[in-house]
Order: sequence, then C-alpha cells, then structure tokens
Amino acid sequence: MNSMKAAVFVEKNRIVLEEKPIPEPGPLDALVRVTTTTICGTDIHILRGEYPVTSGLIIGHEPVGVIERLGSQVQGFFEGQRVIAGAITPSGHSFACLCGCASQDGPHARHGFRAIGGWKFGNTIDGCQAEYVRVPDAMANLCAIPDGLSDEQVLMCPDIMSTGFSGAERGDVRIGDSVAVFALGPIGLCAVAGARLKGAATIIGVDTVAERMSVARRLGATYTVDFQAGDVVEQIMTLTDGRGVDVAIEALGTQGTFESALRVLRPGGRLSSLGVYANDLRIPLEAFAAGLGDYSIVSTLCPGGKERMRRLMAVVDGGAVDLSPLVTHRFRLDEIEAAYDLFAHQRDGVLKVAITP
Amino acid sequence: MNSMKAAVFVEKNRIVLEEKPIPEPGPLDALVRVTTTTICGTDIHILRGEYPVTSGLIIGHEPVGVIERLGSQVQGFFEGQRVIAGAITPSGHSFACLCGCASQDGPHARHGFRAIGGWKFGNTIDGCQAEYVRVPDAMANLCAIPDGLSDEQVLMCPDIMSTGFSGAERGDVRIGDSVAVFALGPIGLCAVAGARLKGAATIIGVDTVAERMSVARRLGATYTVDFQAGDVVEQIMTLTDGRGVDVAIEALGTQGTFESALRVLRPGGRLSSLGVYANDLRIPLEAFAAGLGDYSIVSTLCPGGKERMRRLMAVVDGGAVDLSPLVTHRFRLDEIEAAYDLFAHQRDGVLKVAITP
Amino acid sequence: MNSMKAAVFVEKNRIVLEEKPIPEPGPLDALVRVTTTTICGTDIHILRGEYPVTSGLIIGHEPVGVIERLGSQVQGFFEGQRVIAGAITPSGHSFACLCGCASQDGPHARHGFRAIGGWKFGNTIDGCQAEYVRVPDAMANLCAIPDGLSDEQVLMCPDIMSTGFSGAERGDVRIGDSVAVFALGPIGLCAVAGARLKGAATIIGVDTVAERMSVARRLGATYTVDFQAGDVVEQIMTLTDGRGVDVAIEALGTQGTFESALRVLRPGGRLSSLGVYANDLRIPLEAFAAGLGDYSIVSTLCPGGKERMRRLMAVVDGGAVDLSPLVTHRFRLDEIEAAYDLFAHQRDGVLKVAITP
Amino acid sequence: MNSMKAAVFVEKNRIVLEEKPIPEPGPLDALVRVTTTTICGTDIHILRGEYPVTSGLIIGHEPVGVIERLGSQVQGFFEGQRVIAGAITPSGHSFACLCGCASQDGPHARHGFRAIGGWKFGNTIDGCQAEYVRVPDAMANLCAIPDGLSDEQVLMCPDIMSTGFSGAERGDVRIGDSVAVFALGPIGLCAVAGARLKGAATIIGVDTVAERMSVARRLGATYTVDFQAGDVVEQIMTLTDGRGVDVAIEALGTQGTFESALRVLRPGGRLSSLGVYANDLRIPLEAFAAGLGDYSIVSTLCPGGKERMRRLMAVVDGGAVDLSPLVTHRFRLDEIEAAYDLFAHQRDGVLKVAITP
Repeated sequence: MNSMKAAVFVEKNRIVLEEKPIPEPGPLDALVRVTTTTICGTDIHILRGEYPVTSGLIIGHEPVGVIERLGSQVQGFFEGQRVIAGAITPSGHSFACLCGCASQDGPHARHGFRAIGGWKFGNTIDGCQAEYVRVPDAMANLCAIPDGLSDEQVLMCPDIMSTGFSGAERGDVRIGDSVAVFALGPIGLCAVAGARLKGAATIIGVDTVAERMSVARRLGATYTVDFQAGDVVEQIMTLTDGRGVDVAIEALGTQGTFESALRVLRPGGRLSSLGVYANDLRIPLEAFAAGLGDYSIVSTLCPGGKERMRRLMAVVDGGAVDLSPLVTHRFRLDEIEAAYDLFAHQRDGVLKVAITP
Repeated sequence: MNSMKAAVFVEKNRIVLEEKPIPEPGPLDALVRVTTTTICGTDIHILRGEYPVTSGLIIGHEPVGVIERLGSQVQGFFEGQRVIAGAITPSGHSFACLCGCASQDGPHARHGFRAIGGWKFGNTIDGCQAEYVRVPDAMANLCAIPDGLSDEQVLMCPDIMSTGFSGAERGDVRIGDSVAVFALGPIGLCAVAGARLKGAATIIGVDTVAERMSVARRLGATYTVDFQAGDVVEQIMTLTDGRGVDVAIEALGTQGTFESALRVLRPGGRLSSLGVYANDLRIPLEAFAAGLGDYSIVSTLCPGGKERMRRLMAVVDGGAVDLSPLVTHRFRLDEIEAAYDLFAHQRDGVLKVAITP
Repeated sequence: MNSMKAAVFVEKNRIVLEEKPIPEPGPLDALVRVTTTTICGTDIHILRGEYPVTSGLIIGHEPVGVIERLGSQVQGFFEGQRVIAGAITPSGHSFACLCGCASQDGPHARHGFRAIGGWKFGNTIDGCQAEYVRVPDAMANLCAIPDGLSDEQVLMCPDIMSTGFSGAERGDVRIGDSVAVFALGPIGLCAVAGARLKGAATIIGVDTVAERMSVARRLGATYTVDFQAGDVVEQIMTLTDGRGVDVAIEALGTQGTFESALRVLRPGGRLSSLGVYANDLRIPLEAFAAGLGDYSIVSTLCPGGKERMRRLMAVVDGGAVDLSPLVTHRFRLDEIEAAYDLFAHQRDGVLKVAITP
Repeated sequence: MNSMKAAVFVEKNRIVLEEKPIPEPGPLDALVRVTTTTICGTDIHILRGEYPVTSGLIIGHEPVGVIERLGSQVQGFFEGQRVIAGAITPSGHSFACLCGCASQDGPHARHGFRAIGGWKFGNTIDGCQAEYVRVPDAMANLCAIPDGLSDEQVLMCPDIMSTGFSGAERGDVRIGDSVAVFALGPIGLCAVAGARLKGAATIIGVDTVAERMSVARRLGATYTVDFQAGDVVEQIMTLTDGRGVDVAIEALGTQGTFESALRVLRPGGRLSSLGVYANDLRIPLEAFAAGLGDYSIVSTLCPGGKERMRRLMAVVDGGAVDLSPLVTHRFRLDEIEAAYDLFAHQRDGVLKVAITP
C-alpha cells in the first residue's frame, strides 16, 4: 500500500500511467490525497518535449484534494481537510517572496531570484496527476476549500484562473477601459473574465473557434473578433472608433498575437503577456512609436500561494465569476492517457478536463 | 426669449423656480440646453442651509443635454451634439489638475490647490436645474453621449456613479477582496456596484431600509446587514469569520458609520470615505491599533472631466452595470419644488429623481 | 554556561539586568549571539507601563549579532555569519504576509491578520537586549551584513531606519514634493532622510531642540521650524507660499502633531502617521474639508523581514544615507540600566545609544 | 522690428540661422522672449534627416525666457515674468491628458490619443532656437522660475531632466534598489541622478567615455562600467553578486543597449526605455524567460506641463540635485551653426550647450 498511480513523463511524446511510491512529507511539507486534477497546456509542451523535464517526473500542477498527513512543523491545518494548492508554490521566505515576486522564488541563497523558480509541481518536483502529491512549504501553500464548493468549482484556481486574472491585474485594467484578449483558450477565457472583474467596459475577444468565442461572450466579452475574417488590427481599430485599446492581453505565445496586441494599443497602453513563447520576439519600430509611445509590456507567471488561492475561491464562492463552462470533459486517472490524447489534439471542443483518481 | 426657468436658492429652506436670463458663454465655455437633470443629496444640504451658497444661485450639478452654442475658442464639439458634463468641472490647466488632483482645482495662481475647487456647478457658479447651463472650460468637460444611450441611462454619470465608483477605486478594491459599504443611498449603492466592478468577492451592504438593501443585492452585494438588527460590527465580523474586511466604504457622513467602518477593517485595511461630514471625526485609539495597524483612511470628491464621463458612459454602454433601478421618480422642471419635497423627505422609496425641462 | 545576561521587564518603572537561560532554537529558529543592540522609544513606553508586556520578558527588538546555532530546518545561512534581523519578524507564510501586510502577521489560522502581530521581539517573545536572542522563522528574517559595514552602521536598520523611511514610502513622496516632518526624534530624523531619498524637493523639519534641528538639516531638511517660535501651521504655510505640503509625516504620536500635519496639507495631500498614540484622535471638520478634500491618512508599523533589511543595508553600503550622527552614546550591556535612565530622560542630547554585550 | 533670428531646418544636414517673423500669440497662447535655450540629441536626428520635420520649421524645444505678451484668454501670468515651458506642451484638456497620458496628447476629437502628440515645439510647430517662441496652451505650460535661479540652472528642466528622471520614475525605482543605466549622455546622466533621487542603493552607469563616467559618479553612480573593457552583462552580474538589477534604464536607443538591459535584470525586474530607436527591437527568448519571468518593459516620452516644470525647478532650488556639470559650452544664437557642429560631432567633451539670443 505504499505505491500509487501517477502520470509520468518518460520521453518525448510519452506520458504514461505508472506505479510510483507514495511520497514522504518532510517537516515543512504536507501529503495531499488528490481528489481532482487537470491537464494544462504546459503539460502538452512537456509531452511534446518543447519544455524539458527529467524523465521519470510525475506531471501536473493543479491539485484539489484532502490532507493525508502533515509534516512535523506544519501548523494551522488538519488531516482530512479539503484543500487546494497553487500551481506555483512559493516558499514564503525567499528574498524573491519578500520582494513581492514570489513566482520567481529563489533558493536559500544570498539574493534569491530564479526565473520561474516558483513553479515546482511537475517541473522540478513530482506533480499531482497522481493519487498523492507532496506539497512543499505547506504553510505557505495549502488553502482550505470553502464549505459548499465542489472540486470542479475550484479546479481552475491553481493555474488557469490565477494566470488569466493576472493578465488583467498586471495590465492594470481600470474601470471603463477597453481591453482586447488575443486567443480564447482556457487562459484567454479567464483573462476575459478577469478583465470584466476589473471593470473593463469593452472587452474584445480574438479567436476563430466559434465555441470559444461563444464562451468568451458568456464570460464578459462585449465583442468577439474572428482573426480569419479580416485583418485583426483593423477590426479592433474599427470597434474602438480608431482609438485602440487601453490594455491588450496576449494569451497564446506567438509573434503574431504579440505583435497584433501591440498594434491595437492606444499610445500609453499596456500589453500584458501571458503566453509561453518558443522564439525570440520582435517589437516593430513604428508600433512602438520608436520608443516614445509610453507603452508598457508586462509578462506574468501564474501567482500562487495560499492567500491567492483563498481570494480566487472567494470569487467563485461569491458568484462574481462562473467558470464551470470551462470543464468540458471528465476522466478517471486510469484514463489519463486518453485525456492527454483528447486535450493535446483539442478534439471535441475540449477546454479543460477534470481527472479524478 | 432670453430668459429661462431655473431652480434658485433663495434662503434656508427655500429653493424656488424662477425666471433667470439665459447665460452667455465665454470663449472657453459652452451653453448647453438641459434635457434631463436630477437632485443630489448635497442639494438638500444646500436647501437646509447646511452647506452655504449665495442667495440667487441656480442649483444642480448633474447635467444631460444638447450643445446650444460653443465659445469662440472651443474645438472638438458641435452644436446640437448630445453631451453630459461632470458635477466637477476641472479646468485641465491648473497646477492641481496637472498634479493628478483635478477635483481640488485651483485658481490661475502660482501653486493652485483650492479645497473642493473643482465643484463649481450649483456651488460657485450657476448650476443645471434650469433650461440652460453654461459649462466652463468646455473642452475639458463636455463629453458626447454614445449613440443608443438614453438620457436616463447616463444621468447617474455626472455625480452618483463617479462618486460611488471612486469609493471602490480609492479604496483600491482588488480581486477577491471583502468590502463593506455603510449606507445604501444612491452613493452607497453605486459604491456597491463599483466594488463589484473592481472584483470584490464579498460585498456587505449596511442599511436598514429593506428596498435599499434589495437594490444593493441586485447591484452586487453578496450580503446585506440591517444595523438595527444587532451590532453592525459584530454582524460583519461574523460574516467574515472574524477576519474583517479589506475595504470599508463610508457613504453617509456620520461619526457612527465612520467609526464602524474603521472597526470592521482587518489590520492593513483601507477606509474609503465618501460622506459629507457635519462634525469633527473621532478615531478611536484601539480601532486604530494606536497608530500601528497599517490602516489607510482616504477621502474622495467626485472625479470629473470628460475622460471620466466617457469611461462611465462606456461602462453603461457595455452593460457591465445597470443603474436603472436608481431612477424611481420623474418630474418636469416645473414640478421641481415637489421633487425637492419628495426627495428631501425620502418619501415613497425615492432613490433618484429625473427632472426634465 | 547556559545562562546569559538580559534586560528584563519586571514591573512598571523597573527594567533590570538579570541572569536568564540561553534560549534553545526550534527547528525553524536561529540562536544569535548579540554583538550590538539599542534602546527604542517603545521600550520606554514599556518601562513606564504605557505599553503592557508580561513581567519577566526580555526587552529589545533591534539585534545585530552572529549566528550561534541554526534550527534543524534552516537553510541558506551558516554559523558564525554576521547578521541582523528586523524589529518585526514576519513568518513569511501567514495570510497577512502573503497579502502584502507582513507587519500585521497572523497566527496559523484560517485568515490570519493580527494587529501588530509581526512585532514579536520584546513584545510577545523574548527580545535582544541580552547576550543571545532566539530569532523565529529564521529563513524569513536573518540577513547577512555586507562586508565592510560595522555593527553601528547597520544598528538603525532593524527599526528606526525601516520605520522612518516607511513614513516617506507610505506617504508616497514623489520627486519634487514638499514634505513636513513633525518631531525630529530618531524616527522623525529617519523620515527626513527617507523623504530626501524619495526625491522630495522641500523638506521642513519641525521640533524645538536645536541639536535635533541641526541633525535634520544634515540629513536633508531644507528648512527647520521651531514650533515654539510661532504657530507651526502658519510658519509652514508661509514657507510653502500658502500652498501647503504634499506629504506630512507625523513622528510623535500626539493630537497636536497629528492635527498640525493635517492642517498643513494641500488638498489631495497625504498624512503619513508613524507615531504611537495614547489617546483617541480627532479629525477637525474643516481641516478635513468635510470629507471632500481627497486627503489620505495612512499609518505604518515598521516593515521587517530579511529583504527589507538587505535593502536598508544596501542603502547604507552605497552611501546614499549616513545615519551615523544618530548614535550619540555607547554603553556595555552591564550598564544598560544607566542607558535606560539617560535615554528615558533624553539627557545630554541623546538620540540613540549603542549597547554592546 | 517684426522679424527675429531663428534656427531653421532647411533640408537634411542643413539647419541655418534665418530671419523669421515674430509669431503672433492666439487667445490661449503666450509669446515668450527666449533668453536661453539648448540643443537636444533629437535635434541632431532632425538635422540628419533621421526624424522628419517640415522644411522651414524653427527647431528647438527647451525654452527659458520672459513673457513678452499673453493671449487674451490667458490668466495667472504677467508680462515680464521669467518662465520656462516643457519640451512637451500638453493642452490639459484632451482625452489623453485627462487619462494621465499627457505626452500622447491628442486632437480635439472624440477619443484623443496621438502617438508623441504632446511634442509640438520644433516638431509640429515652430520651436525655440529663436529670439521668440509662441507657447501653445499657455495656462497649462508656462511655469514661473523661482527667484534666485539662473537661466542655466533651469535649462535642463524642459527636457533632459524631465526625461532622465522619468526613466527612474517609470522604472519604479524603490529605496534599496539596484539600477543599471545604459549610456551616459545627458539623458543617461539625468537618469542616474533620478535613480539616486528615488532611493536606489546601487547605481551602475555604463559607457566608455571616461569624462561621462566621471560625471555619472558625481551625480550618484556607485559604479561605472566600461562596455569596452569586457562583457557588460558579466560585469554587472559580478557587481550584483549574480543577482542582477531591479531596474535597467536604456538611454541610447539601440538593440545592443536594449538587449543588455534585459539581460542584466533579475526576474521580475523592470526595463525602463528612454532611447529613440531607429530599428525594430528583438527580445531574446531566454532573456525574457519565454514570457514567464514577470518582466516589465516600459517606454516613456518626456513628461511636460507646468506642474512638472514646477517640481523639477523645486528640486534644483532645494539643492537635491546639481546638474550644472552638464552645461559644458556656451554660444550666442548667432553662433548656433557652430554649436550644432560641435554638438553633432560630440567634440571637446561636450554634454550640453547653452545658447543665448
């Protein structure tokens, strides 16, 4: 009974379900029995070998579950408690954390920043597409699920919702702003919801898949634009009477979306980038007003930590946002290879899958 | 044909409809024919002699209308255009304006702040409860009404909506915050809507009038608390599991609401004050943690200017907020004395009245 | 050899040097051998029974020393390393810490704010006016002293410098601002230095002690005002050509200084309060423009944590500020009762004392 | 007596002194008699045909002078008053101005942003390398010179100081930050001074000209790095113990400096770009952490308007910054062609020239 099932990265194009030992929590850790988890676009990058991780690593960074055992130094939680943890698990005590930059959490060294250092699950330590997961720095990362919320209702909090909302937050969306969101996958859809939640008056969602555009309108988009139906920059400039948008959110990770996002900004506007890029980016001279346009370009890694999780679950609990349309398919952990197959090929209108061990 | 009807402050407890000359716009002004206006709680303070203005002044600061004539130096508008102007009409070129503090607009002197200096209509110059109003610094203050919006849909923009929203903005409401709003008159109701618009997860409206509490829930309050049904601080602490709220918005102007707002704040929380006070305020030592609680207390005068008006109308136009429940009664300008009577005594569940010349 | 000398609060008006056991560090703690410490104004409040602490508590919250022993779970430091810790020692993993409010650090409970909860040394746990001190949550709080800096050069970092600078930071001093600082004790003097460091153009220090006013000018005050030489509000309004200041910093904790700070603010200005008050505060109606003046009143508890300490020591190391004039007297720990006597009575021009075990 | 001397752009590589009519101020304008002005790097771009302006335009955007005549609608100033105006002259009443983006001032149209629209002098209207200059929107742009300050002491305010300081402001330099400034021309030197003024602890100036590096150290640089003495990124990483800087300011306008600025940032750091670029920019994938590094890239056009000018002159007046080392050469307006020749070829250690009509 010391082994469990887990989705393991073996090699490029092979994530398989294997038997692995149940992890032992250290003094500051917690062992969480996973009750629901999901697959992220980043996991597909790992599957395809586009983002390198060690062979043998358990994948997954979006855990919902029950505390099975607490490390000897962990206070403030109890075994049997329903919890989530963020995809990003900052220590709380690094220089990066204390500098307001927890997602770039560093080692216990003198200065302490490490790019993407806060992302540990399914990246630098075993993840949660498994029956159990070890949560590091449990006091900073576990967050109790409010009574009355189901696993699926909070399943988007660890990553998708935190990342998507941060697109609007870091873009500093203000009451009355106009916002364009480029690409309406799960992250972009949450960015639409986040822009609405921050008071945007006009939200323009850009994609070409009708279902995604429809979900975007349900989540608050006032317009959707099909980039295959004409020049996307022209369409957005027309919708904004030639003014451009205050904030453009990039949610795909390509030169095309990045560049279009810049081109639709009004001078002084803010480009909030959420995508994971695979190539160098180009900033066209005239779209950047030769450096004199007062533009801002900001990029963001998913915010984590228990306070962030508490806030996101409070948003769900208060009813301000309903992300239930995002879970389109459900699988048992046993079927995770099929789930990967569906999700990687974006078949059957899939947005997000729920995986239950 | 050079005279018009206008509501004039004569003396304490006497605002009457009189014939007055139609104003002449100066080179930087515009003459606007008023099509709809309303009465504000501040006008009642004026009526009662609690806020002093000159005898003979035309009252009112919330104009919706049509441009009748433009001053010789005014560009960017045309006669016949449907417009609003904010209750606060900053010049745009004072030191205060250029320092980001336009509501405290100053004279053309060296430094240029004057407390409440941006509030001119019905305070230091003739107001808009009249057939015509002169709008000063028209280029900074007129804003075209988007096609398709009715007068009543934009009637709250000049003051109520701008003030109420600013309560949430200056309180820096963040996604996932809990917010308490003290007093659910028109301003408080707009503060509820503003807190929702800024991403609050939990919004607690405080009042004792059932209709107002009901409108608050329609506008986004997750809870309403009747201050006559028990200690209001205790009720809010219970609703927040003893944590207190991140932001408390005061929307009445009394020691009681101010003090309760402070007492329900979690340490590090922000008290955003919108009320007009009539007496000195007291900060209780222990509620202020003796100065060591990282509290913020911020006060705000209604933001004005055409960009603010444009943004608020965009919010209405985009459908993010529907304030139509606020207009409960309608009067012709001829009947304004009756409207004052109803509004001053808060009869018949009145929230806001629409006045049409 | 398991005992050490320590300054212990016995009862009102009695802090005495006693033998106490050397503390045992827990798994997350560090034991630090104190090489230099100091006495704070707050310690005098404790001495006088104005701020209640448990009889038998070791006093003091400003430690400079050497790591003697590390808890079993502490990484990133080594025994023998020269370090400081802040007066405020946040855990790093509480909800308060993760909400950007570390000084109001809470227990390991669901929500986690406790007013003044981050202040532990010499308040809720034993302090550092002793040969050894146990530092809680060592990974979040210990910070290595840069090579080449003496104990005295960093002695102001744990409290005085962090608190004083925070007055300017929370007051959001901007380049070109005018700032008034009320009371030029150690905190006020550091607020002057902080205002200078944030780009204030005009800094007006208020006191009546000539030596303190002289030190203020060395630290960056452009003017000093003697409140006994005439009405302080009038003097400051004259110095600012009737405009008032953008930011007023209160550094004493009385109604008089608080009220004067409010009265010298230009509309839209910010009152940054650092003082520890002993009574309710009054906000005069007209000085608050009846709630319509766009004023902000912010209070701050000393920011702590290792990143804050690192930054403050970097400021000293880079030479931007020289606070060495603040240490006016030196005592051995054996003489601490005499040091208390001198400091409590502000004899001999004392600003801060250095205590060496 | 209706003509004056003025430096006029004729064609590529030809700016010549010509007789031009003295301008007529309109109702909102002021006519200023220029007493001192200077040449900017941007003027050299114009000279070389790299930045296109109309043939016949008077060049120059940094005026110090005396009010000769006020437009009929201008209040708050008097003829004979010593004044400056910023290089950027926002109207105060455009949507862009009221949206906090005055440098991107727009026309009097519905929405109102125009990239670089606030820069008018010597760009879209006649400039100030002349005996007289017409200042548009005088009430928003003229600012009285404090008594006791000479022309040369305020000559840097209209552009160089405003731009350089904005590099530190938009980069959000905080107390204790480390900052690198790439290129130590006049703008970069002012960025060094601005970083110091905002509380940076460590300021690293990058150039290769010994005199410029020396002036940088006088203005607050703690280190200077010669980019010809080894890899500049490595040198800066060594100086920061491998941590990188919090803020990197680009002050030249090339791919090399932009890219190095990005490479020396710690994750979560801010690249503040001041340079005028001539080509598309490239963001290297790994230096951008593939979009996951929480980086910010902000660009800024010189802030203008009379409040900005007032603040900068207050900084000079208060003695916080002394930029007098920047004026290295002096010419009469008659000699401006020689001044251009010297400045364009950066001969004789020139930093800035003072031109007196």
